[in-house]
Amino acid sequence: MADVLSGVTSPSDVRALPEDALPGLCEALREAIITTCGRVGGHLGASLGAVELVVAMHRVFHTPQDALLFDVGHQAYAHKLLTGRRERMHTLRQAGGIAPFLDPRESEHDALAAGHACTAISAALGLLSGRQQLGHTGHVVAVVGDGALTGGLSFEGLNNAGGSPLPLVVVLNDNQMSISANVGAIPALLRTRNARAFFESLGFTYLGPVDGHDLGALTRALREAKASARPVVVHALTKKGRGFPPAEADEQTRGHAMGPYEWRDGKLVRSRGGRPTFSEAFAQVLGDALERDPRVVAVTPAMLEGSALTGLKARFPDRVHDVGIAEQHAVTFCAGLAAAGAKPVCVIYSTFLQRAYDQVVHDVCLPGLPVVFAVDRAGLVGADGATHQGAYDVSFLRPLPGLTQWAPLVGEDLAPMLATALQASGPSVLRFPRGTLPDVPPELAQERTEEMGPSTPGQPMHDARAVSDDAMTSAASRTKPGALPVPGARWLKRAAGSRLTLVTLGPLGLSALEAARNEPDWSVLDARRAWPLDEAALLEAAAGGHVVVAEEGTVRGGLGSAVLELYAAAGVAPRVKLLGMPDVFLPHGDARVQRTELGLDAAGLRRAGRALLGEESR
Amino acid sequence: MADVLSGVTSPSDVRALPEDALPGLCEALREAIITTCGRVGGHLGASLGAVELVVAMHRVFHTPQDALLFDVGHQAYAHKLLTGRRERMHTLRQAGGIAPFLDPRESEHDALAAGHACTAISAALGLLSGRQQLGHTGHVVAVVGDGALTGGLSFEGLNNAGGSPLPLVVVLNDNQMSISANVGAIPALLRTRNARAFFESLGFTYLGPVDGHDLGALTRALREAKASARPVVVHALTKKGRGFPPAEADEQTRGHAMGPYEWRDGKLVRSRGGRPTFSEAFAQVLGDALERDPRVVAVTPAMLEGSALTGLKARFPDRVHDVGIAEQHAVTFCAGLAAAGAKPVCVIYSTFLQRAYDQVVHDVCLPGLPVVFAVDRAGLVGADGATHQGAYDVSFLRPLPGLTQWAPLVGEDLAPMLATALQASGPSVLRFPRGTLPDVPPELAQERTEEMGPSTPGQPMHDARAVSDDAMTSAASRTKPGALPVPGARWLKRAAGSRLTLVTLGPLGLSALEAARNEPDWSVLDARRAWPLDEAALLEAAAGGHVVVAEEGTVRGGLGSAVLELYAAAGVAPRVKLLGMPDVFLPHGDARVQRTELGLDAAGLRRAGRALLGEESR
Repeated sequence: MADVLSGVTSPSDVRALPEDALPGLCEALREAIITTCGRVGGHLGASLGAVELVVAMHRVFHTPQDALLFDVGHQAYAHKLLTGRRERMHTLRQAGGIAPFLDPRESEHDALAAGHACTAISAALGLLSGRQQLGHTGHVVAVVGDGALTGGLSFEGLNNAGGSPLPLVVVLNDNQMSISANVGAIPALLRTRNARAFFESLGFTYLGPVDGHDLGALTRALREAKASARPVVVHALTKKGRGFPPAEADEQTRGHAMGPYEWRDGKLVRSRGGRPTFSEAFAQVLGDALERDPRVVAVTPAMLEGSALTGLKARFPDRVHDVGIAEQHAVTFCAGLAAAGAKPVCVIYSTFLQRAYDQVVHDVCLPGLPVVFAVDRAGLVGADGATHQGAYDVSFLRPLPGLTQWAPLVGEDLAPMLATALQASGPSVLRFPRGTLPDVPPELAQERTEEMGPSTPGQPMHDARAVSDDAMTSAASRTKPGALPVPGARWLKRAAGSRLTLVTLGPLGLSALEAARNEPDWSVLDARRAWPLDEAALLEAAAGGHVVVAEEGTVRGGLGSAVLELYAAAGVAPRVKLLGMPDVFLPHGDARVQRTELGLDAAGLRRAGRALLGEESR
Repeated sequence: MADVLSGVTSPSDVRALPEDALPGLCEALREAIITTCGRVGGHLGASLGAVELVVAMHRVFHTPQDALLFDVGHQAYAHKLLTGRRERMHTLRQAGGIAPFLDPRESEHDALAAGHACTAISAALGLLSGRQQLGHTGHVVAVVGDGALTGGLSFEGLNNAGGSPLPLVVVLNDNQMSISANVGAIPALLRTRNARAFFESLGFTYLGPVDGHDLGALTRALREAKASARPVVVHALTKKGRGFPPAEADEQTRGHAMGPYEWRDGKLVRSRGGRPTFSEAFAQVLGDALERDPRVVAVTPAMLEGSALTGLKARFPDRVHDVGIAEQHAVTFCAGLAAAGAKPVCVIYSTFLQRAYDQVVHDVCLPGLPVVFAVDRAGLVGADGATHQGAYDVSFLRPLPGLTQWAPLVGEDLAPMLATALQASGPSVLRFPRGTLPDVPPELAQERTEEMGPSTPGQPMHDARAVSDDAMTSAASRTKPGALPVPGARWLKRAAGSRLTLVTLGPLGLSALEAARNEPDWSVLDARRAWPLDEAALLEAAAGGHVVVAEEGTVRGGLGSAVLELYAAAGVAPRVKLLGMPDVFLPHGDARVQRTELGLDAAGLRRAGRALLGEESR
């Protein structure tokens, strides 16, 4: 079967195959997808479900003259395999390797770069309109999953396309679940004759439903769509995970996005470290909050699995709301909840919060409603790549009046920070990274043991001030251990006669502590809040004359920028070096390697500190 | 008739009136709305169309126990008049006066603060869900205009509400046009039986269509909706501008948002200065670009009138796209246009660009597509108030790789800046304020005349460097007059032995020039770009030891912050003072007065400069 596939290096090869070779091609594609994802992880389920659809589309449409725009693109591994990238598929999602989603810079057959859902219809309509404007020909096809139909951008696109005379083709790849089971009215709508009514009411010709694994039926429907002179929807019913029993059987996600896995003794074994992730640790403290306070409610836009909330959904079915791919609604729904007196916690990835920026500004911050945003995947995201980097949240949120932004150093910070946010009368953010919880370094662990008894997950640790000396002049150190609300910044190391302070946000503080370990006159301050600043602590840091501010986010407008604004306003002028994510869209890769390359590890922080002091690196 | 109204100080008074008093009440409300808007301007048309609807809702629902959430709230002047604010309505939209939209801080009968469309359904569902969670009772009603149905957030709300068992009531106030005529498939949908099909397919019970000016029919439908145990839509057909012939007759907007006007000799006369606005001037240069280059396309989300594009729409009907209230789609549609090789110019208010932030990040900047964003209403917006302030665009856009942000000083900058943006291979922003074009000060006007011949609108003026001395060391001054692309910053005044530089963005440079007029050792630098910075010019500014950066936008992460980042990276440490919009949501008021209060006028800039120099104000 692999032979069939090795003979296919471009879509024209697909079109040249005799019809009876196609089932074998599909089988070979599935095998390649399963093998690739087994090695390197990836969006297995959606890509398995779309194999026949991709083959049929390449039989009917001629890319790149015709344009196929895959929404998100995690359904499109078969498309990658058929467009000259088969040999490199083993590099998927790795540094320098094949991109996790689609990218016109990777192949002329990729018409759209997209890692966020719901963009395809609008972009396709624009592409078609622009081509018409410039006298270019070619068909334009938007391939959209049913999950993306709940997203407002998809609807805006449908409304405009349906009201336009342009012959846009929308292929609805309906696998009956998006990332997790769909929510809202759309799933029922798609399962009934309402699907036709819905799309026809929006001005589309409706073709279907078509069996999305029947190549003949698919090809016929796509040919009809291609011949249409007006907007048309082809509704294909597919099965996520199709052809890979473990994925098909996984009712929760059908193998949506998986890390590497192996077959062992007929069982699927996912390769995975034993340490909990920040997401899991946050879910645990959120569960405690739900347990304790009946006003607490959790809201997620289709990230029950990604943010480790499936257990909570089972425990609190009426108080954990998955609103589907609908980030804007998630936030404004939280605004309504807060207005009613509930305490909503909106769990959302940093990159997807971009989708709800106006709702944060206008619906939450402007009325000052106490919504808590648990911003997951803040900072480097590794294999998901450029579209998913959590680079901008601190910068776009910092200007918003009344919004407090917390960042935990270690897992133990999550509980007191969430408690503080839930006590607040206004909105808060709690940003944490993708990845496993860090080890607590000896200095902090020792203090914790002495002051707080044995280490217990969920215990507050903002008493780590005890590692500082006893000159308690800053707001960072005025509060009792365990007291709420969590105070401002925290000295992780406070050197007597300090010449330089490493100021950090989030787990980077641990790297800073390591960087400063053998530097007797270096201090380390965990800012703990990106905004508002702990001004007293930061002014104390300035007194040493040298300040390095490091954060896992853009340096443009971030914590470092906030510190500079403070120093300018206070009229103090230490030498300041800002470290963070650079002015580029960082591609996929290993986040640990990227941290090193960006100088955001202990060695990099040490180098930055020494350079600022004008010392040679030893 | 006014008597009827003066007896009504709360919704319970409305409910106590006999039915036969209601037509008189409606007439009195219309009179009050027309009088108020005539004096102070406002959203006349929508409020006139919703008079009977508001009265009927207050007859059926009991606020504040029941909650009425008006989408946007510009349909809700009658609601303001009936809820104890009649006596103060003459202060509408003025500093310290009645807010332009609704605000729970203004009245317990306002359940939602909203100046942006499409938020009501989601917020209402959250409110209802939260109330249920906490055991509170009361009905929740979202009142939504038909124009807001094109917005994705409304659809996300409908999908979630329709899939929920909660008895949310959605009242569709269908006046058959939003701000301007509706676009897309929705208008046709609402005019046919498809309305029922559409809402029922989304899980709602559909009641209607109801004559929205028939109090009896409205009341019956609302009572039925109130009794429903599941989600229900009441579809009311109203006429925007109803009862005021000049508004009804205005086919373009039916009196959407008007400045003050007067009746003179039976004619409506809008009071209005003769100078063109920045919006109008931009529309003119955009028209020239459309004329010159067939690849140029303009896109606006429902702001044809607001951004003065109606004339262009008439001239270039196929190349000026009004996509309706659908900001996200507007931007992603532009991405598709740019991918096709067209040159899209997305004309959008600063405050509404927030709604499309992720689309700017993910769909435009990540692939580096050459979309031009003409960001209108950037800075203070005056009477529209807190929800519409253009405070954040520089800060949320600055971190995005490859995005250039321009700001014109005077109207003459618009043409060369747009030409530069249209030549660029990547995305650009051109931000300009609400309001009329400034006078060109004598210094600049004189230079322009000498170097470029008579002043012509649309002529480039980035040659104003000639007012600087002849030490041409900075990138700001290396280019020939009229040359494209527009170079970096521009010295408006370059003092020999300068001790202080006022660095500004946009028309503020003119105030800075005035502030520096009698200060021989002050210079003035028009940054011209918020990002990327003209580093050489700004480092030259630093050499004097004192820099004031002033911008009409938040100081958090804005131009001033960028300048601080540059100085930190370069290791220079002038004293720097940042001026801009403060860390609050600024309310409605007179923008000129607010500028003075914020120190963003010539006197304020002079004070800031002197304070930074340690001088007493003279």
